[in-house]
Amino acid sequence: MSSDVVSEGDTVLLLAPKGVAWLVRVSRGSELHTHLGIIRHDDLIGRPYGSPVESQLGGRLHLLRPSLEDFIMLGERPTQIVYPKDMGLIVARIGAMPGSRVLEVGTGSGALTMFLAAVVAPEGRVHSYEVRPEFADAARRNLERAGLSKYVEIKVRDASAGVDERGVDAAVVDVGDALRVLGAVHEALRPSGGLAVIAPTFNQVERIVSWLRSSGYVRVEAFETTYRRIESKPGATRPSSSTVAHTTFVVTARRTLGGPAPA
Amino acid sequence: MSSDVVSEGDTVLLLAPKGVAWLVRVSRGSELHTHLGIIRHDDLIGRPYGSPVESQLGGRLHLLRPSLEDFIMLGERPTQIVYPKDMGLIVARIGAMPGSRVLEVGTGSGALTMFLAAVVAPEGRVHSYEVRPEFADAARRNLERAGLSKYVEIKVRDASAGVDERGVDAAVVDVGDALRVLGAVHEALRPSGGLAVIAPTFNQVERIVSWLRSSGYVRVEAFETTYRRIESKPGATRPSSSTVAHTTFVVTARRTLGGPAPA
Amino acid sequence: MSSDVVSEGDTVLLLAPKGVAWLVRVSRGSELHTHLGIIRHDDLIGRPYGSPVESQLGGRLHLLRPSLEDFIMLGERPTQIVYPKDMGLIVARIGAMPGSRVLEVGTGSGALTMFLAAVVAPEGRVHSYEVRPEFADAARRNLERAGLSKYVEIKVRDASAGVDERGVDAAVVDVGDALRVLGAVHEALRPSGGLAVIAPTFNQVERIVSWLRSSGYVRVEAFETTYRRIESKPGATRPSSSTVAHTTFVVTARRTLGGPAPA
Amino acid sequence: MSSDVVSEGDTVLLLAPKGVAWLVRVSRGSELHTHLGIIRHDDLIGRPYGSPVESQLGGRLHLLRPSLEDFIMLGERPTQIVYPKDMGLIVARIGAMPGSRVLEVGTGSGALTMFLAAVVAPEGRVHSYEVRPEFADAARRNLERAGLSKYVEIKVRDASAGVDERGVDAAVVDVGDALRVLGAVHEALRPSGGLAVIAPTFNQVERIVSWLRSSGYVRVEAFETTYRRIESKPGATRPSSSTVAHTTFVVTARRTLGGPAPA
Repeated sequence: MSSDVVSEGDTVLLLAPKGVAWLVRVSRGSELHTHLGIIRHDDLIGRPYGSPVESQLGGRLHLLRPSLEDFIMLGERPTQIVYPKDMGLIVARIGAMPGSRVLEVGTGSGALTMFLAAVVAPEGRVHSYEVRPEFADAARRNLERAGLSKYVEIKVRDASAGVDERGVDAAVVDVGDALRVLGAVHEALRPSGGLAVIAPTFNQVERIVSWLRSSGYVRVEAFETTYRRIESKPGATRPSSSTVAHTTFVVTARRTLGGPAPA
Repeated sequence: MSSDVVSEGDTVLLLAPKGVAWLVRVSRGSELHTHLGIIRHDDLIGRPYGSPVESQLGGRLHLLRPSLEDFIMLGERPTQIVYPKDMGLIVARIGAMPGSRVLEVGTGSGALTMFLAAVVAPEGRVHSYEVRPEFADAARRNLERAGLSKYVEIKVRDASAGVDERGVDAAVVDVGDALRVLGAVHEALRPSGGLAVIAPTFNQVERIVSWLRSSGYVRVEAFETTYRRIESKPGATRPSSSTVAHTTFVVTARRTLGGPAPA
Repeated sequence: MSSDVVSEGDTVLLLAPKGVAWLVRVSRGSELHTHLGIIRHDDLIGRPYGSPVESQLGGRLHLLRPSLEDFIMLGERPTQIVYPKDMGLIVARIGAMPGSRVLEVGTGSGALTMFLAAVVAPEGRVHSYEVRPEFADAARRNLERAGLSKYVEIKVRDASAGVDERGVDAAVVDVGDALRVLGAVHEALRPSGGLAVIAPTFNQVERIVSWLRSSGYVRVEAFETTYRRIESKPGATRPSSSTVAHTTFVVTARRTLGGPAPA
Repeated sequence: MSSDVVSEGDTVLLLAPKGVAWLVRVSRGSELHTHLGIIRHDDLIGRPYGSPVESQLGGRLHLLRPSLEDFIMLGERPTQIVYPKDMGLIVARIGAMPGSRVLEVGTGSGALTMFLAAVVAPEGRVHSYEVRPEFADAARRNLERAGLSKYVEIKVRDASAGVDERGVDAAVVDVGDALRVLGAVHEALRPSGGLAVIAPTFNQVERIVSWLRSSGYVRVEAFETTYRRIESKPGATRPSSSTVAHTTFVVTARRTLGGPAPA
């Protein structure tokens, strides 16, 4: 069980009013500069999680352990990410379980990677491919902060030329042009395994669904989810007037023993 | 790694056309009776996962390993359940991680329990309270089938009188009247821990949000998610005309060192 | 002002519990047969609008004047229709006003036709083209019942060969393949006039938007609307769990003095 | 039929790239100052509607006749307004038709008033009550610009003390506390007439629905609509990532011969 108080080296969440928040790795002698004034890391060490913290300018923050969502949403984000609203469905549908081996093509910022790692840990592994070294590095730092890096292997390589793994239990694809890598993913995915492909546009949905259907996949299903905040005050509760209206579509499917027609 | 072929005792998914599917525990000598004809379990044993299966009447099914979603959606459901569309957000937001101890009040059919168990396994535990023994039994069978029962302890008891656990990392509440149990949950939840409360009506949202705010919780947020299928055919892709428009609202929050005002 | 009591020849709405309703043209000696028993038209004549009506089997109905929505939703519907949820935006955006002349290609069941007629009446006109005579007949009967037929001229003809009108203020298109008729509509629409095209699939949206942009149209915008019922009981108000999730996309635009490139 | 060219005194729409637009009353000698440079009204007079217009800085705008939506969205808006996405349903459901007399309580900026006026014109009337004189003045100017003021009578008065009208065909209510005025509206609404009440919060929905049910109203229904833009480019069409997620709920109902229980 994690400690009840903050130690040097912890990554903590500092939560300001109105939902503003920072992920901070506590390091003796360091300072966090905010619009509420400076917060000295030395003042955090030894303090219990859940405590209020006063900033120099008298702002009131709270000291919290970061959740998986905090690591995802407040981590480095050099790329678009898959949002937590979609992760539950993806993970539950592709069959990722404790101990599973999951192939990921397109690590990006490592957002979905973190969620997958949390499910397969500690016996399973996420094998994740990323072409751009700077994205791979950001993802590694995000995973490290969340304590999940030991369940993930990131390879800086183009998966379209083929991947090393065979017989993985499940796979996710989040790259600009999924059709380039689906053949390689198919080779790696064991029969009955589940696949999720991120597809921001209708056009991608249509092409991916076609490829999967003609390659013997079953339960081919495309979907989108939405998230809407409810603003609640006593006697005046209503949906929020603003929201993210669309992030991405997702296509999910199950591999069978059949395969793609030869190109 | 699980076997590539079906063995006696496996729980398999039999997928018929149009998305109809059955969870079947394979038992020598048994038969599954469907609208496509009879399928004899003996014909499944030794067959590779991902295989097509012919029914007596010539229907074509597929033999798949069940995913977590299959265990959730096709398990016994004596109660309303939390849907996978909401589970990712709940789990990521309350701070459930591999190794976490999570308190659940209102096991119901064990749907959310399964997802929580998959995340905390194998070191963590879900401590789940359910008043109705028949629900607890259904949940246990669902967890057993999904191979997740060893990470969950179900207690048939009313949590409003207090729970045994202290210092749990996170908590979820899904009961008819959440306000009856929030005090007991608060006692059990360690400071900084995350909480999610299922609230089907806006009236419940309002009361729960009020209780949490007045009890020192931060990041109190209510939301709803929606799921919409996209129907994709080459040249004719469109959102599905029917969907589940509302399942439930969810209220999430983080405990601080503060506490509820004495009643 | 319409009469306060029902006269022979009136089209009335009979509303049963749970929202079941019938449009009935009152005719002496006729009967309406329902699951609540028989209702004799003679019993309706002379009765005030807004009255309760007992059926033979003791069911309680209400006698109402039909609204425009009733004429639209309970009229004959041999085709898919545009729903009232989209009509306000269409009408307001294309610039239909009292006195406008509006071109409609694809009368269908006359649903949108009715709404357009209600806005342009009594000085304006809707000129509506329909290839299938049986649809044109259904639309005429629907318009007649709603008292709006005198503001509409329906022509049973394929508009792709050209339309008779020139300089119309606004236009709507609701046919299977809008691209076949857009050239003819363009000829008829005065510069600055507004156009709305019904497009159930995203593929149609994409082609129509392309055509309009390359033909000098401005304010080219595609959208979809959704409608969700709220179920309200004292202390238990929530969104309905079922809804129509998608009916159609709509593309709207304004013509400029520019025109389509020659084919 | 309106002229094909701009005359002094016309209210025109000047449309800049990216959807920015201005409503301009053309007046000899005046200038419009924009981020694209100055546009002299004298240059607009005599020019055909639908023309491109060059600004001083070389920006390209278009000269259009304003649509009803333009008058609604670009008019003066000292208050929240009802949006066109909700207007079609409201108008169709309450039974507003050409020639109807409609009572409106809460003119606000006159947005819904304009739409109602367009439907009932020229024989019908909208009788609209507004407590705040500055809102009434803004609404009058908006109606005037749209050419609809002659179908509307605005009274600067609190409707809760009672209204002058009796036997109106339909009514709409858009005030802070609808319950204060529903009694007066009920007195004015003829039996069978339709009513729509704007209710931004769930709590208002619940109270209004209760009042209506206990006052003999039928077809009591609450709803919300959403509007989502689709961004379409060849090969890359997707829903817009931002939208207005909630504007208001609307409650609609039909009056019967029954009435509210005495207070």
